[in-house]
Amino acid sequence: MDHTQDRALRHRAARVLPQGVYGHQSTALLPETYPQFFTRGEGAHIWDTDGHAYLDLMCAYGPNLLGYGDPRVNNAAIAQLQKGDTLTGPTPLMVELAELMVSMISHADWAIFCKNGTDATTMAKTVARAKTGRRIILVARGAYHGAAPWCTPAPAGILAEDRAHIHYYDYNDAESLSAAVAGAGDDLAGIFATPHKHDAFTDQALPDPDYARRARALCDQTGALLIVDDVRAGFRLTRDCSWELLGVRPDLSTWGKSFANGHPISALLGSETARDAAGSIYVTGSFWFSAMPMAAAIATLEILRDSSYLEQTIALGHRLREGLSKAAHAAGIGFRQTGPVQMPLFLFDDDPDFRRGFAWASDMLEQGIYIHPWHNMFLCAAMTDRDIDQVIEAAQTSFQAVSKRLDKIVPHPALSTLLAARSA
Amino acid sequence: MDHTQDRALRHRAARVLPQGVYGHQSTALLPETYPQFFTRGEGAHIWDTDGHAYLDLMCAYGPNLLGYGDPRVNNAAIAQLQKGDTLTGPTPLMVELAELMVSMISHADWAIFCKNGTDATTMAKTVARAKTGRRIILVARGAYHGAAPWCTPAPAGILAEDRAHIHYYDYNDAESLSAAVAGAGDDLAGIFATPHKHDAFTDQALPDPDYARRARALCDQTGALLIVDDVRAGFRLTRDCSWELLGVRPDLSTWGKSFANGHPISALLGSETARDAAGSIYVTGSFWFSAMPMAAAIATLEILRDSSYLEQTIALGHRLREGLSKAAHAAGIGFRQTGPVQMPLFLFDDDPDFRRGFAWASDMLEQGIYIHPWHNMFLCAAMTDRDIDQVIEAAQTSFQAVSKRLDKIVPHPALSTLLAARSA
Repeated sequence: MDHTQDRALRHRAARVLPQGVYGHQSTALLPETYPQFFTRGEGAHIWDTDGHAYLDLMCAYGPNLLGYGDPRVNNAAIAQLQKGDTLTGPTPLMVELAELMVSMISHADWAIFCKNGTDATTMAKTVARAKTGRRIILVARGAYHGAAPWCTPAPAGILAEDRAHIHYYDYNDAESLSAAVAGAGDDLAGIFATPHKHDAFTDQALPDPDYARRARALCDQTGALLIVDDVRAGFRLTRDCSWELLGVRPDLSTWGKSFANGHPISALLGSETARDAAGSIYVTGSFWFSAMPMAAAIATLEILRDSSYLEQTIALGHRLREGLSKAAHAAGIGFRQTGPVQMPLFLFDDDPDFRRGFAWASDMLEQGIYIHPWHNMFLCAAMTDRDIDQVIEAAQTSFQAVSKRLDKIVPHPALSTLLAARSA
Repeated sequence: MDHTQDRALRHRAARVLPQGVYGHQSTALLPETYPQFFTRGEGAHIWDTDGHAYLDLMCAYGPNLLGYGDPRVNNAAIAQLQKGDTLTGPTPLMVELAELMVSMISHADWAIFCKNGTDATTMAKTVARAKTGRRIILVARGAYHGAAPWCTPAPAGILAEDRAHIHYYDYNDAESLSAAVAGAGDDLAGIFATPHKHDAFTDQALPDPDYARRARALCDQTGALLIVDDVRAGFRLTRDCSWELLGVRPDLSTWGKSFANGHPISALLGSETARDAAGSIYVTGSFWFSAMPMAAAIATLEILRDSSYLEQTIALGHRLREGLSKAAHAAGIGFRQTGPVQMPLFLFDDDPDFRRGFAWASDMLEQGIYIHPWHNMFLCAAMTDRDIDQVIEAAQTSFQAVSKRLDKIVPHPALSTLLAARSA
């Protein structure tokens, strides 16, 4: 595979962007053949700068829910841009969008729109503290809630004070959660939880209903706020807050990534009990009132509400999981698929430094399938049975190929460094 | 003036948005006749939901620099949207945009793109701490650097720890700055400065060159990083970092609002000395790699580089300042215009609770001129001499009208509450 253009761009990027490309879309920790830059997206596919097309199981790390460039969404967005986007005040779309989200999300009585998932999670923390007058926020160990100083996974430039009164518990462990609540004494402001455990580098885990119910009960007992961070999983599991599937209703939920199908908007939703506290904090951003992403969000949400996108992606997910499972078994490869079928994570047994996963992913990429070797993926509604079958067929080939050269695969140097740092 | 639609929308908003509309575009602290919602923007004008047109001197609180809906910018943005926006990696536009900004901003060797001005200022703080291994950040008292917990102007939900190691000095006061640096001992990480003093509710002040040079010298002596927060003033004063006008070059600068003419993108720029530190921190966002705002930014920056937008807006600003000054003098009104002429702030003498300013602004609004009674404004390149003359003509009428009923004007209740809290 030719990567000439991508290499040239990386060379230029290294001069004007720290580390080349920073953040979650950096390929520094991916197999070396993975392209860093793309030129086009359409439906379920992306094209790199050297002209290779890929069926994309990353879906932009979440934002692509209906398919890249969905014309129903983009036409609504463009029509609004032509009228007005970032003005001296919001358009009526801000009210319409808030009404629409409140009508779809059972626990929600109000919405605040922002730009980053991190904006929403940081506001949730602040609202919980404003509501309770207390300080301690409980977060599951290893869970990702954004990249602000209080939650970013990297320590550089972060002070102990940035994490003050953030306490940790083990996801899906009701006893650990109860112990953390007891440890907070009378200073508990809120409990964060992702809908399911979707930490990178490790098997996903569906939520234990006992743990989720315990989180709700502990908040009821203490007056702390329960916060479901639906930024990543939102609208991928249900058309409501994800923990409605367990019958557990939070006080606050955070949203982003997918609800405008890739247009830049995120949100904090809250129940009546948190309305006054949400109104008491000062939060804003230059583009938080922009109309174009709100038009895109309304168009997306109406499709989510009225179409079978959810049932489609779940059916695609089951087809994929079953096909890959058979292919791995046939090749005699220990292969784990975890999490909701429409948000799959693939890991290999006996692969502590991910070298097997990397080799497999590289081989899949060569066959035009973009998968991620250590992060959960996403299915989108633009995928078809034929696309899924293409993944399975490629996997059959790749599993066999990897199986044959297991003893020749070397680990990825950058990832080895990271893993060594994590285990230190 | 009919406000039926606006009132109806406010009523709906109050149910689904905390405080109706939150943040800097809330009209809660503006005269009661100010519309909260708008439907359209074109060039220098905005239209409210009741169909009234206004010449808009707020320019969306900064983002409108070339005129609302500039087709050169929007066509570039739409063309990119049709190819791909939020993908599984950035497009080559990310490199092109970084190269363009680095070529225009003298101190900059690299760029990180983000969504909010607050993202950029928060990263600047983190980079300064990562670079130096020290903790203390100096900020001018009353300066606005965003709405994250470390800098938001409101205390609700904020802990003492959120502000730990943030120390304050007086803007334009080299002795105050030196004292703050001395107070930081060997723990100084960085000094923040806005290009000029543009705090709300108070006269703007141009930067004292001695103060700016002292800031640079103190950073050189201590190894701390100098950060110019150009989010609000960027590209309004010069085609470079604003302190280049003083011959003072920062290590980091923060950008937002205007450089994509209203499309959602902001940036942290840095010099070589801060590159490794910037590469060591982990920062990211779901939409930070989106291509559409980058296409808009490139189109905008090329226009800024190649057109006379700057000289135009400065000339318009002089025309406005002179005309308003004459009109106020003729009406016998004590009226202060401060700051750069293209970013004017208007305040009245003997107006501690802003009631004169509010009355004048309301009268201007009735005549189709949208001004702000306590926040700096912005001129844009879509304005014409005729527009400015229209402002001056309206002001002549409004000054006379306000002058005649000075003793009948009552203060704004919400603002009185805020001002009482500020002075407490």
